[in-house]
Amino acid sequence: MRSHGQPAWELLLPAAGAPARRRGLALQEALRKAVRSGRLAAGTRLPSTRALAADLGVSRGLVTEAYEQLTAEGYLRSDRGSGTWVGGAARGRHTGSTRARGVVQGPVGGETTASGPVSGVSGPLPGGSGVRVDFRPGTPDLSLFPRSAWSTAQRAVLARLPHPALGYPDPRGLAELREALAGMLTRRRGVVADPERLVVCSGVAQASTLLGFVLRARGLDAIGVEDPGSPEHGRLFASTGLATVWLPLDEQGLRPEPLAGSGVRAVVVTPSHQFPSGISWSAERRAALLDWARAVDGYVLEDDYDGDFRYDRAPVGALQGLDPERVVYAGSVSKSLAPGLRLGWMLVPEALLGEVVERKRTMDLGNPVLDQAVLAEFVARGAYDRQLRRCQRAYRERRDALLAALAEHLPGTRVSGIAAGLHVIARVPGRYGPPERFLARAAEAGVALRPLAEYGTERPGDGDVRLVIGYAHLTPSAVAEGVRLVAKAVGGG
Amino acid sequence: MRSHGQPAWELLLPAAGAPARRRGLALQEALRKAVRSGRLAAGTRLPSTRALAADLGVSRGLVTEAYEQLTAEGYLRSDRGSGTWVGGAARGRHTGSTRARGVVQGPVGGETTASGPVSGVSGPLPGGSGVRVDFRPGTPDLSLFPRSAWSTAQRAVLARLPHPALGYPDPRGLAELREALAGMLTRRRGVVADPERLVVCSGVAQASTLLGFVLRARGLDAIGVEDPGSPEHGRLFASTGLATVWLPLDEQGLRPEPLAGSGVRAVVVTPSHQFPSGISWSAERRAALLDWARAVDGYVLEDDYDGDFRYDRAPVGALQGLDPERVVYAGSVSKSLAPGLRLGWMLVPEALLGEVVERKRTMDLGNPVLDQAVLAEFVARGAYDRQLRRCQRAYRERRDALLAALAEHLPGTRVSGIAAGLHVIARVPGRYGPPERFLARAAEAGVALRPLAEYGTERPGDGDVRLVIGYAHLTPSAVAEGVRLVAKAVGGG
Repeated sequence: MRSHGQPAWELLLPAAGAPARRRGLALQEALRKAVRSGRLAAGTRLPSTRALAADLGVSRGLVTEAYEQLTAEGYLRSDRGSGTWVGGAARGRHTGSTRARGVVQGPVGGETTASGPVSGVSGPLPGGSGVRVDFRPGTPDLSLFPRSAWSTAQRAVLARLPHPALGYPDPRGLAELREALAGMLTRRRGVVADPERLVVCSGVAQASTLLGFVLRARGLDAIGVEDPGSPEHGRLFASTGLATVWLPLDEQGLRPEPLAGSGVRAVVVTPSHQFPSGISWSAERRAALLDWARAVDGYVLEDDYDGDFRYDRAPVGALQGLDPERVVYAGSVSKSLAPGLRLGWMLVPEALLGEVVERKRTMDLGNPVLDQAVLAEFVARGAYDRQLRRCQRAYRERRDALLAALAEHLPGTRVSGIAAGLHVIARVPGRYGPPERFLARAAEAGVALRPLAEYGTERPGDGDVRLVIGYAHLTPSAVAEGVRLVAKAVGGG
Repeated sequence: MRSHGQPAWELLLPAAGAPARRRGLALQEALRKAVRSGRLAAGTRLPSTRALAADLGVSRGLVTEAYEQLTAEGYLRSDRGSGTWVGGAARGRHTGSTRARGVVQGPVGGETTASGPVSGVSGPLPGGSGVRVDFRPGTPDLSLFPRSAWSTAQRAVLARLPHPALGYPDPRGLAELREALAGMLTRRRGVVADPERLVVCSGVAQASTLLGFVLRARGLDAIGVEDPGSPEHGRLFASTGLATVWLPLDEQGLRPEPLAGSGVRAVVVTPSHQFPSGISWSAERRAALLDWARAVDGYVLEDDYDGDFRYDRAPVGALQGLDPERVVYAGSVSKSLAPGLRLGWMLVPEALLGEVVERKRTMDLGNPVLDQAVLAEFVARGAYDRQLRRCQRAYRERRDALLAALAEHLPGTRVSGIAAGLHVIARVPGRYGPPERFLARAAEAGVALRPLAEYGTERPGDGDVRLVIGYAHLTPSAVAEGVRLVAKAVGGG
């Protein structure tokens, strides 16, 4: 790359008078594009933050932030002392011959009570009826749905939609929605989103089923899932004939050796804010996963179930942006608007597109058009961004209420995965009782809790109580009341 | 049954002061219920129309009409001279050992241009662009969609729907919609509709896919389809792993011997107004089909794609009413409101219900809730009935315009299947040219026509041109103009 004069991406930056935040985002997007297009080849060393800031006439802080953001997303890597480089982990490092194979999960029975990122389906509670506070994750705050704005948009849509739009739909979705979503996702999630590759679907659950059927028809018989992860993924893929293989996570993401040894050629992951652990995958693990996918000619389903909600910094860009031909990206409005809309999207690699669209066609001929047109209005007019900001503010406040209540009433509890999303992991010290008794007492007190054990195969024997606590659907006072009730029941403060 | 005094169903009739039409419909429904419940056992002879009219204190015409209607639906049979009896064809008559097996249609290729009752997907036209009048069947008149009433109902729904209704839906559908539809279908289509057995789905296409997956998982490998019939049925079932077997029709319905010899244990049929032939199945054939289903422990999918549109008499009741444990009934709003709503329903036998609902859940978690709530309003407030009457008036007028234009411009053309639906079969005499030339000239003149040959395996060599003409989506003047253009192109009047 040129280290003097104007770098190639300078053209994309807003004029110097534009707000710093907009210039910063534009710099990040210009860098992403330059890496993707190959203008910045893998292995290239980037100029120092000081030099680039001077070149571009922006503050050094903006450049530092851009480097950090793209490093988190896996576009760049940073070696302490030796600067910033294009590309993530070195290739081929993780193609070891470890035979460690995950636990094979057959057509799923048993675990029908857990809920995950792709579904809010909740089973009966251990304690029966009389739930006062429900901390089970998976549901957003339905009272935040913008009824009045949605109603106005509905009326506008019915007034302007041409008659033919009411006919049998394009199974890929309404053209105006695909265009609006492609723009929004490029901007917000750093994906590579061509409207021609975007398929509107009923949500991440349907995206999973669509992809499952396509992969099954191509001869795959299993798909890897994160451990811990969402049992719902397993149930959905089982319905398409694919077995699921649990693949262990550590604090950085999927561990490369068990993945390589598993024999699967497809995985479903939640790298932005892993469900349920709450970690954000490291740049190295993102790169390693894509290396693996290319090596086995495989595919990755990225379930970006809550990628829009990040509280203490900018959201980490989606994995799909790093390799749109290996990653199927799926998201929905279930957490941002309402699950009842059953409206979502997938970005599909070229090689799978025809098969996915034909599956969508035979499954339902395409999504209903009116809600699609309303969402297109919403996105195009900025109402969707406003809704996301509104949710983000509300959810951050609830998260803070939860952290404060845990610190006050159950001191000693360690909380993780707090930077983003609609839930946290809480590890309550064993002194509040062994897990079974803790959960039973909470249930008796009318508080529904979901133990982490329901989301995977690990069973640490340290006596601590690990919980997946969903807070987004509860008011701050309900959050505090729930924690207080639990603490009282288990003898806490 | 009692031939003196008050028959058991009298209690259900509206008081003598009620309008004759209402009393007539109530009598029909009371008779259906009495047959279904076994209070009127198969083989029972009914009283004469004169005697029953006197018993009930209604006009003899009402009783005659009720007997005729229920005979058409297969509840009763009438032997000239010997009166009216409960039950259709005698049992066991059609379990012959004929080996005639239909043509097996593999995973479907080729026929991607035809459209059928379950889909309006239309491929490229032979003549390319420049279509002036499109007679291809499958699409209703989209300008009849009641935009203003729908908009009002949308607003009302968003104002009243409780927050939890916006959450993850019941995969069976919104309770209020299932209840409203069950009532409407019982009243309009003579089905046995328990809201607990009703599954809201995205239309008949999805109903087919749902049932196909369930039957495939039960070990079936093929399903019978009507010949002629809708190629789309075959494509949908192929996506679930089921091959399709063409089963020949005659002017009464599916011929029993080829059905019995085919080896299939499931069929999809359109008995109310067969697609594309337009016949209404005879009572004997309805009974024979159900006898067959019971004998082979099989299932019938009834695609009631246009059962609501019948112009010259009351609609024939659905097959499902005769045996709700053997018939899966499927319908949608695609012809009555708009295909773009992707909203339909199935009535599912008890034995299949759990599997169908679980399939629906993994396919999309359930239909979007807002349109469901709006349709529930529509049905409950009578707006849906008004819409059906409005469509029926419009479509009857268009059908009449078509018949008049054919008589004027292509004299000698024989038209069938005219009593109902959104299309007719026209048999144009060979003197207007052999079929290939006829179709080519029509296409050159800008008129899109669909030959009957695209819907089945029969190829009569008499030189006549057999067409499936859809008229519902065209104004009367467009219908007349289309026929005039064709006639001019082929040298007609």
